[in-house]
Amino acid sequence: MKRRPIARIADALLNARSLLFCCHVNPDGDTLGSAMALARAARLLGKRADVGSSDGVPDIYRFLPERERVLKEPQPGAEYDLVAAVDVDGFERLGAFGPAARQAPLYAVIDHHVSSAEEGMVDLRACDTSAAATAEIVFDVLKALKVPLDVEIATHLMTGILTDTGSFRFSNVRPRTFAIAETLAEAGAHPGPIFKEVYERRPFSTVKLLGLVLARCRQSCRGKVVWAVVSRRDFEEAGAKEEETEGIVNHLTTVATAEAAVLMRETLKGDVRVSLRTAGRLDAQEIARKFGGGGHRMAAGCTLPGPLDRAEAELIACLESLAQALP
Amino acid sequence: MKRRPIARIADALLNARSLLFCCHVNPDGDTLGSAMALARAARLLGKRADVGSSDGVPDIYRFLPERERVLKEPQPGAEYDLVAAVDVDGFERLGAFGPAARQAPLYAVIDHHVSSAEEGMVDLRACDTSAAATAEIVFDVLKALKVPLDVEIATHLMTGILTDTGSFRFSNVRPRTFAIAETLAEAGAHPGPIFKEVYERRPFSTVKLLGLVLARCRQSCRGKVVWAVVSRRDFEEAGAKEEETEGIVNHLTTVATAEAAVLMRETLKGDVRVSLRTAGRLDAQEIARKFGGGGHRMAAGCTLPGPLDRAEAELIACLESLAQALP
Repeated sequence: MKRRPIARIADALLNARSLLFCCHVNPDGDTLGSAMALARAARLLGKRADVGSSDGVPDIYRFLPERERVLKEPQPGAEYDLVAAVDVDGFERLGAFGPAARQAPLYAVIDHHVSSAEEGMVDLRACDTSAAATAEIVFDVLKALKVPLDVEIATHLMTGILTDTGSFRFSNVRPRTFAIAETLAEAGAHPGPIFKEVYERRPFSTVKLLGLVLARCRQSCRGKVVWAVVSRRDFEEAGAKEEETEGIVNHLTTVATAEAAVLMRETLKGDVRVSLRTAGRLDAQEIARKFGGGGHRMAAGCTLPGPLDRAEAELIACLESLAQALP
Repeated sequence: MKRRPIARIADALLNARSLLFCCHVNPDGDTLGSAMALARAARLLGKRADVGSSDGVPDIYRFLPERERVLKEPQPGAEYDLVAAVDVDGFERLGAFGPAARQAPLYAVIDHHVSSAEEGMVDLRACDTSAAATAEIVFDVLKALKVPLDVEIATHLMTGILTDTGSFRFSNVRPRTFAIAETLAEAGAHPGPIFKEVYERRPFSTVKLLGLVLARCRQSCRGKVVWAVVSRRDFEEAGAKEEETEGIVNHLTTVATAEAAVLMRETLKGDVRVSLRTAGRLDAQEIARKFGGGGHRMAAGCTLPGPLDRAEAELIACLESLAQALP
């Protein structure tokens, strides 16, 4: 991204004596890695620096260096010269740290998402939607700060890039992503162990649940519609929790013929949570909207009233009529 | 790798007028991409160049530019000044092209595996076991040849690197891997579409089979041993072929507690093909050898006589006794 916003953020960090870097709620590898890299860099420069993550650090990120220093709620009486939202825009997505951000003498946003809110509230903004991960922007900020890239910071940033690019394969990857990864790998951050920690240390129940669900996967319209359902009985049989369905829908999207892939999950309350993916010809957002949901063109979600079999019949009938109309 | 072997191979390619680049049997993305990149480069330099792949080009690699030019058997009467084995060492692994390699006036090996055979038979060798893929070595050869990196060659080489590194996450990835990927991406080879073509265009039956098998996955020794079996009935129910079991064992290895992960597949002949993976504390090769198989420390295979349930009982009992003995 352009030099100026990076240089201005770097100057502000250098001028501050106490800093808070805030992650978004439901934190992922990019918000955590980016915020933790910034905090470590600030501490290496002799500053007081905290990371705030309202939802803590999920188990799959427990390997991140200095994770034990991440705050789940603001420390009583703590005051900061500068508060930065990292990989997020909008006070309400900072959870318990929203008020600290609102009250900060200087409020910055470092992010790679399309900016949405609080235009007038943000003092400094280093946002670049062409970056594959916020970690790429942080890489530039740290370079401007002339902080040495140690293995801890390199691990933080590699985690951000790896998780936000699905290990260098999503469409957001650009040549520069690889150039940054080279530097991080040189500094000792190998992608292999990070990938293993994040994606390959699953409970047995996750694998079992995946099997139970995919064993009953179905297709119609000559494979254009592919779907599977997760009932409460599946959760019980596998001994699995709600969040262990994550990623199952991606298996359905790998079917070559699929124009629409759907996972339907019966919630504890008895309604049906739908994850919808399309190959691009059908508009997932438009379909989800019909059922009161939303999202993007190729990935969207909605919630239907139960029971599961009725919701399944209704949604699949809708998809089949759309798929049949495709040329 | 060192400059000299690269320069010598490049000189030999420049001096030859007709060239044959040979893939190994059961070709993967690296042997195909590397050989096809070399052949295209040679043709751009005005030479006659063929690619020989005894087992053709598997469907998942059908997107590779110029795949229709790959030969499955030698053309009658074809003679070459130089024949190179690419991503392979050993005439017998060249299938139908072994004789052409043996008879070549000049025989070269370009490879990143540990060299094994035919020391005296090889005229030129560009081998570097520190390269993540043979495509990395070919990248250097093409640079020495000063061939412009067009999008076709970049796609060939990116395919080699992507498939041999599991999308930049295996332990063979080095900083230079990313540096080369940056150049290939700059030349127009995005990893995303390649990944999708190779790994995410599966038949419905593959996803179904995965589900049927994982739905019955089991664990013992407090999760240290994790396994699943594929019966002939599973193949029938899913409508799947033998090769569609590929990758299933990797799901079992993602269980955090697993010291050993095993997939047992009933073959058409009625015996039981075993894929064994370990987390490193148990020696997969040693275990496979007990049953007449072999492999490496963390990945090995063997074949047991059927029926499936007896083979399962025997192998799992062996693994359980080893797992229980672990500290």
